[in-house]
Amino acid sequence: MLVKALFKDIFKDLSKVEKELKKYVQTPNKLLTETSGHLLFAGGKRLRPAFALMAGKVYDCSLDRLIPLATALEMIHMATLVHDDVVDKSLTRRGKPTVKAKWGDTISLHTGDYLFAKSLILISDYKDKRIAGTLANVSVQMCQGEIQQLATAFDTKQKIRDYFYRIKRKTALLISASTELGAIAAGAPDSGVRALKFYGHYLGMAFQITDDILDMTADEKKLGKPIGSDLRQGIITMPVIYALHNSKHKDELKNIILDKNKDHEKIKNAVEIVEESGGIDYSFKITRRYIDKAKNELNKLPKNKNSKLLDKISDFIYERTY
Amino acid sequence: MLVKALFKDIFKDLSKVEKELKKYVQTPNKLLTETSGHLLFAGGKRLRPAFALMAGKVYDCSLDRLIPLATALEMIHMATLVHDDVVDKSLTRRGKPTVKAKWGDTISLHTGDYLFAKSLILISDYKDKRIAGTLANVSVQMCQGEIQQLATAFDTKQKIRDYFYRIKRKTALLISASTELGAIAAGAPDSGVRALKFYGHYLGMAFQITDDILDMTADEKKLGKPIGSDLRQGIITMPVIYALHNSKHKDELKNIILDKNKDHEKIKNAVEIVEESGGIDYSFKITRRYIDKAKNELNKLPKNKNSKLLDKISDFIYERTY
Repeated sequence: MLVKALFKDIFKDLSKVEKELKKYVQTPNKLLTETSGHLLFAGGKRLRPAFALMAGKVYDCSLDRLIPLATALEMIHMATLVHDDVVDKSLTRRGKPTVKAKWGDTISLHTGDYLFAKSLILISDYKDKRIAGTLANVSVQMCQGEIQQLATAFDTKQKIRDYFYRIKRKTALLISASTELGAIAAGAPDSGVRALKFYGHYLGMAFQITDDILDMTADEKKLGKPIGSDLRQGIITMPVIYALHNSKHKDELKNIILDKNKDHEKIKNAVEIVEESGGIDYSFKITRRYIDKAKNELNKLPKNKNSKLLDKISDFIYERTY
Repeated sequence: MLVKALFKDIFKDLSKVEKELKKYVQTPNKLLTETSGHLLFAGGKRLRPAFALMAGKVYDCSLDRLIPLATALEMIHMATLVHDDVVDKSLTRRGKPTVKAKWGDTISLHTGDYLFAKSLILISDYKDKRIAGTLANVSVQMCQGEIQQLATAFDTKQKIRDYFYRIKRKTALLISASTELGAIAAGAPDSGVRALKFYGHYLGMAFQITDDILDMTADEKKLGKPIGSDLRQGIITMPVIYALHNSKHKDELKNIILDKNKDHEKIKNAVEIVEESGGIDYSFKITRRYIDKAKNELNKLPKNKNSKLLDKISDFIYERTY
């Protein structure tokens, strides 16, 4: 598991989050326990809990205080995934059937609502109003991002600005909240809270851009889904926006994107156009810039084992291959 | 408007909630503003805000302190409605097209998520942890109720216990939270909080049973939907459960329920069987019992204009015709 290699130091802590997650998806209702459990056991990097724990531990926070927050963050993430699968009509995630594929849209809708509501129980136990307030604001904005993704699908005229708006809401905000709220739960000073918030933001942006690069370049088996699945759904990511502006074959690319019945051959052709245009290299460059900005924020934190770990992770985000 | 006749005394207060609601559905995203606005302007009794305001005012709470709670309660209610319409495949509500009918499932899903998240922003501003905690717990249980409704659809063997389990989660819990949290926001003593919580519970149960009676007996125009729509969806309510046990024509009734392609004629036939069996009268009797229990709780409260208003409303719930 990725988590093991990367977060060796906090693997023990994360296993406690895992235990809490298992406990929290239990319900008197058999079906909800099954669907939530399915999501849970489908795995995932547990990035958000890991970030919350590390951020809190930079300020020597006890694990007990951080675990409910970390658990809630993963449950919110899972809730958005199960709703996204309905919207995207996704049948597999991480190589396994989605809740939508196994149980249908209605059950997926309730499972998402349920996990989100469960996470609020954990959150409501924190006295600091900023924790619930931040998560509420993040959730509102995540919905706005999802709606914008629908509105801009198959829109070949969109700008890089639209893309940034979207990935901030889709990914960066919740990762940023993870590090920010970890710091808040730890009672960190305002300067530390701010630095960790920005660290999470920059890293989240970098993470999503890398994700979008991998959607075009990764080993399909490792990725657990076919190459170019964004393109297939009309989701236009940074490498594609770059190619739509700079490729010699931009018209051909545009036609493939607009063709709603494109086959695997055409998708592969589009990916080649994007690679040839330099769109992938360009996206890596932007990712690097975000990583550097994230690392820069860490200079404002106390130097210790955990702030060093956050630094190590930044490099991993850049180098990951799946 | 119903609200005007019934809540004359707090109509002015409710109009402030209305203003807040209008403000809160605004977003930089045009589509979300449209869908949320559509829901909002489709009307509704604003029962939950009204209950929260009245409960708080029993303890002389200022309006300013109650308005965010009242607004949040209505937004949570709206969020559940828009998700329910997806699940129930409902095309009209209160005689108007649903968000689902106008914009489809995906947009409805996000609109519900959005309204729920927005309500949390309002809630996160209250210092008393019981407010967010109670609403989180209620939301979890509402999801469980929805899943149970799906699981028991078309199940003619279900018991009255299953029905109570369901309507508690579908309706009573949020109404109970409205009165309970109104009291908590007002700083009411524990005995008052408890009495208002139970008042809301009993009234909520009565309200839903009446709703289920009206689904079979009301004027279709006033109701804004065709008669017997629960039966059509396989949702088996108290009058039907009674008839399935006591009617001479129980087998015929069972066959109609199980027939997934039943036409309007058959539905009308089923409704006649239920009426003839005494199922409607029986349900009215149970409603009356809940109303009396609710009124009984009011004896534990200070006697003033607002506790009297809560008493008046109990009678209305029993007598309403739409």
